[in-house]
Amino acid sequence: MSISFRIHKDAGKARTGQITTPHGEIETPIFMPVGTVASVKGVPQDILEDVGAQIILGNTYHLYLRPGVDTVRKFGGLHGFMSWRRAILTDSGGFQVFSLNELRKVTEEGVTFRSHLDGSSHFFSPENSMAAQIGIGADIIMAFDECTEYPADRERMRASMEMTARWAARSKKYFEEHKSEVPWSGPRTSDAGPQQKQVPRAARNDKSTDDKTSGEATQSLFGIVQGGMDRELRKESAERTVEIDFPGYAIGGLSVGEPRELTREIVESTLEHLPKDKPRYLMGVGTPEEIVEYASLGVDMMDCVLPTRAARHGLLFTSEGKVSIKQAQYAQDPGPLDPNCGCRVCQRYSRAYLRHLYASNELLAQVLNTIHNLSFYLDTMRRVRHSISLGEESRFLSGVWSRPKP
Amino acid sequence: MSISFRIHKDAGKARTGQITTPHGEIETPIFMPVGTVASVKGVPQDILEDVGAQIILGNTYHLYLRPGVDTVRKFGGLHGFMSWRRAILTDSGGFQVFSLNELRKVTEEGVTFRSHLDGSSHFFSPENSMAAQIGIGADIIMAFDECTEYPADRERMRASMEMTARWAARSKKYFEEHKSEVPWSGPRTSDAGPQQKQVPRAARNDKSTDDKTSGEATQSLFGIVQGGMDRELRKESAERTVEIDFPGYAIGGLSVGEPRELTREIVESTLEHLPKDKPRYLMGVGTPEEIVEYASLGVDMMDCVLPTRAARHGLLFTSEGKVSIKQAQYAQDPGPLDPNCGCRVCQRYSRAYLRHLYASNELLAQVLNTIHNLSFYLDTMRRVRHSISLGEESRFLSGVWSRPKP
Repeated sequence: MSISFRIHKDAGKARTGQITTPHGEIETPIFMPVGTVASVKGVPQDILEDVGAQIILGNTYHLYLRPGVDTVRKFGGLHGFMSWRRAILTDSGGFQVFSLNELRKVTEEGVTFRSHLDGSSHFFSPENSMAAQIGIGADIIMAFDECTEYPADRERMRASMEMTARWAARSKKYFEEHKSEVPWSGPRTSDAGPQQKQVPRAARNDKSTDDKTSGEATQSLFGIVQGGMDRELRKESAERTVEIDFPGYAIGGLSVGEPRELTREIVESTLEHLPKDKPRYLMGVGTPEEIVEYASLGVDMMDCVLPTRAARHGLLFTSEGKVSIKQAQYAQDPGPLDPNCGCRVCQRYSRAYLRHLYASNELLAQVLNTIHNLSFYLDTMRRVRHSISLGEESRFLSGVWSRPKP
Repeated sequence: MSISFRIHKDAGKARTGQITTPHGEIETPIFMPVGTVASVKGVPQDILEDVGAQIILGNTYHLYLRPGVDTVRKFGGLHGFMSWRRAILTDSGGFQVFSLNELRKVTEEGVTFRSHLDGSSHFFSPENSMAAQIGIGADIIMAFDECTEYPADRERMRASMEMTARWAARSKKYFEEHKSEVPWSGPRTSDAGPQQKQVPRAARNDKSTDDKTSGEATQSLFGIVQGGMDRELRKESAERTVEIDFPGYAIGGLSVGEPRELTREIVESTLEHLPKDKPRYLMGVGTPEEIVEYASLGVDMMDCVLPTRAARHGLLFTSEGKVSIKQAQYAQDPGPLDPNCGCRVCQRYSRAYLRHLYASNELLAQVLNTIHNLSFYLDTMRRVRHSISLGEESRFLSGVWSRPKP
């Protein structure tokens, strides 16, 4: 088996469902915390589990540079290396090459880029992005794509989209030929180290959990729709990607500087061309309002650095709106950060204490702020799923914000 | 009641005991993690509880500057402000004024110093150190002393020791007149904020736990022995401090640059002049080897920034010796940091992962390293107590290192 996807309930365009992966199940719509370099910054893995993260995202670009694919592979993949027992998704590296490298050189073959760490030269192609992602061993991996810059003219958007389509085919070809090489597919070595004991064996031998399960456990490769900000090109990209046939589809190339309204329009129109029976993943999105809205449009998976990065800068998301905890107005505020939040931060600490930690540049500020923001995002998606399961097609969009935790 | 101290078992000079404070009991000998500015850097309070911290130390100098005594008082003291339910000890501010202020001016009245944060001018005297420590509301507070610089000639050591003695008397006088002003002594206000609910009421109404308990819960003021590196002056300082009469005694002014052998000699000789029936606190010490050694000499309480500060710099203490986790030799090491350690870090993560986090400058490196080092220190003291309780006077010094956790 790789993954299976089952829809529980539809409500308008929105739906709840479940993705079964070799490392556990994911309730959709899902928000995936970003753990760039094998760590969701500042949060120990047991706390991540405790706040309810069912799947986290790793960045292939960063992991490839540090600690390197060979090291990760030796530990049975990223699950073993970072001791994360639940599901993982990795991106292809294409977006980081796009966003972190001004000196990248793109050809049909792939992308030459320089490491942001030491300036050394590297090359990513569909084939070696797949090789890296297979070595890293996430449950869901992504086709190597080109993220089209914004703004771009139609000719450029088309050329980029078409190359992404060709790269998708190459990605799939390489993946199909090499997917058995995932480090957790074969038998484990007995000397793989003590932390290996805690990584559950892949579910390859457990055929009873799902009728669709069969054969060896493998990763699943998702395709990515590009096409810039052009609805027609997006449609064509979706159709060409679906034709290649993947177990899930992502919408990439958004949140790259375009107006929010345009993002929404492209997402909504692109979704119409993606199969309903496959997971649909919107990459790099978004604010709490946005993840709710996109879930209502039928997106099943999202990821974003916003909750974690904003937390480290003292920007906190609450049911009462955004809180910039550095402000002096909180210096003596005895209330919890969010009175409607059940997370371990809101249950124990005051706004005044969180403000003090931030103002004093204490490490714990970043830790606690991140735990809260992730809790808020994951709780938000939990409420979205609950609303959809009640059939609340449109009402949950407004209601999900003010409703106290069930 | 303030505190009560009961000795369970003697083994040579060493002893195990229990200090009952208004915020819980402390098993001695105890190591106290340092939470300088209302946070043990990088460690959430629930994890501190989990690793077994029974008492933590706050720094009056830092708390006085930020968030300020008035703010801490409004939250029912430091317990309420930082939501720490167990015991707290504060130092007097004297040592920080000594170590962080090259421009301090010392007179009989007190010390004028400049904030290391903004250069603003401040004044600490025995009276306003007591006022600050009463407002902060730790269970155990310290007399305001002068930490004699090293090296110093005998005349200077004597003059400094004598001023510390006069300051001790002034500290006690002010404390006795104002100790009822501790924020958790009176009835709580109902609008003190949600986090107040989690701070247990002081044990003042619970007379059943200890026969010695009586009256309102108050703080306890400890005296500090100074006298530089001169055994005679230390003896005199001890006698004069004991004459003033405190419920516990500290040895200050050590670990200020003198050779280790000299520290040990002064500690050992000073201890002879301190009453056996009162807690004896050695300030600012030490390495794992040292805390074991000083416990064997009869010290009951110790604190040091070493485990937390070293952790942030990648220096980890283990039953097999020190580990500098940044070293490349650990990059592929699948073993736990310390095979004899039961802490959540050693149980879950490999050396390779910890090395990767440190090399990648990830926040989580500092968090996990600190959790381990504190666990190691607290476990070490747990083993010391166990050894003493078995009557192992001298053997535990060597045995405590190689013995796996019980």
